[in-house]
Amino acid sequence: MTQRPVPGTDTRRPASGGPRAAARNRAALVAAAREVYAEQGLDAPLSAIARRAGVGQGVLYRHFPDRAAVASAVLEENVGQIERTAGQDTDLARVLGVLTWHLKESAAFISMLHIDGAGSRAAVPAYALELSRRVETALRRHLPPSHPLAAEPDDLMIAVGMVSGAVTGAAREQREHRARAAWRLLGVEVGPVRPAGE
Amino acid sequence: MTQRPVPGTDTRRPASGGPRAAARNRAALVAAAREVYAEQGLDAPLSAIARRAGVGQGVLYRHFPDRAAVASAVLEENVGQIERTAGQDTDLARVLGVLTWHLKESAAFISMLHIDGAGSRAAVPAYALELSRRVETALRRHLPPSHPLAAEPDDLMIAVGMVSGAVTGAAREQREHRARAAWRLLGVEVGPVRPAGE
Repeated sequence: MTQRPVPGTDTRRPASGGPRAAARNRAALVAAAREVYAEQGLDAPLSAIARRAGVGQGVLYRHFPDRAAVASAVLEENVGQIERTAGQDTDLARVLGVLTWHLKESAAFISMLHIDGAGSRAAVPAYALELSRRVETALRRHLPPSHPLAAEPDDLMIAVGMVSGAVTGAAREQREHRARAAWRLLGVEVGPVRPAGE
Repeated sequence: MTQRPVPGTDTRRPASGGPRAAARNRAALVAAAREVYAEQGLDAPLSAIARRAGVGQGVLYRHFPDRAAVASAVLEENVGQIERTAGQDTDLARVLGVLTWHLKESAAFISMLHIDGAGSRAAVPAYALELSRRVETALRRHLPPSHPLAAEPDDLMIAVGMVSGAVTGAAREQREHRARAAWRLLGVEVGPVRPAGE
């Protein structure tokens, strides 16, 4: 089980008090949740996340009142990384590399991307829809008109759903291989599969 | 809500006794389950399935001891239709049309196809893995060496997982459009999207 540190979240010390410690704990909890979800799925107990982050369960509950709050913090951080990458002087391949890293790491993110505006059901939480639209906006900033996914208006997010489909249900160590194969089958170039800023 | 009859299962009368009635009830229950699952998802109550089939709940429980037994009967029938189509003098596009019809109709089938041998987790039921392998065998019978999905050994089932991913989470009336777009993005021809034998 290899655990790459996520930039800015590699300080997993117990709280020592104050707002700086609170921010550090929150970041450690989000990073820990991402790892635990990737390994054990979304049903993983919150106690495992607190343990991985090196904080007590009380600290976890202070930041996240329930399970859904933890999952949305992870999704928010994933989408934020994609947006930050898209905000740089970059190209679509690079942004897709970051997107693919999150598909590989985060089961919650995979489920989220199975949703889009046109096809959504009433049961889909509004925030998931909103996050999915933010991913689309970030990708579209770098989509050249000649790109294979620029032909029809919904091709881009259908393709993202397809790559999600290629990794869903796969063991974690198979996901990158399958995601890369999926992009290859779509004829789409993907840059390095890694988190933003590495 | 349009309900196309599935061949051989269009007789939804209450049991009148005897093995023939039992077979008819079972077929009606499987067809009803497919429709109810497609409309309401896999959490639909068994009572809704019995009602749709026009039988009492006692009859349902005589054929299917629990929820999982109903779902596997639907899956078994889906895979059987794909195998029967592949057993005819046909081509891959026609078999993919039947597969796509089932992706469109059956939420359970969609989940099943997110599984493959290489990527499976211990939690995946053995029968789902076996059914997925049978789908692969049926498709491979008609896969020409020059086909876009014949380049790498796992491309075929990765592509099936990708098309599943394109329809997962979409409203039922969006699924055929999305599945067709997915096959188009893969450069793969698909025949009429309909059940076997129609």
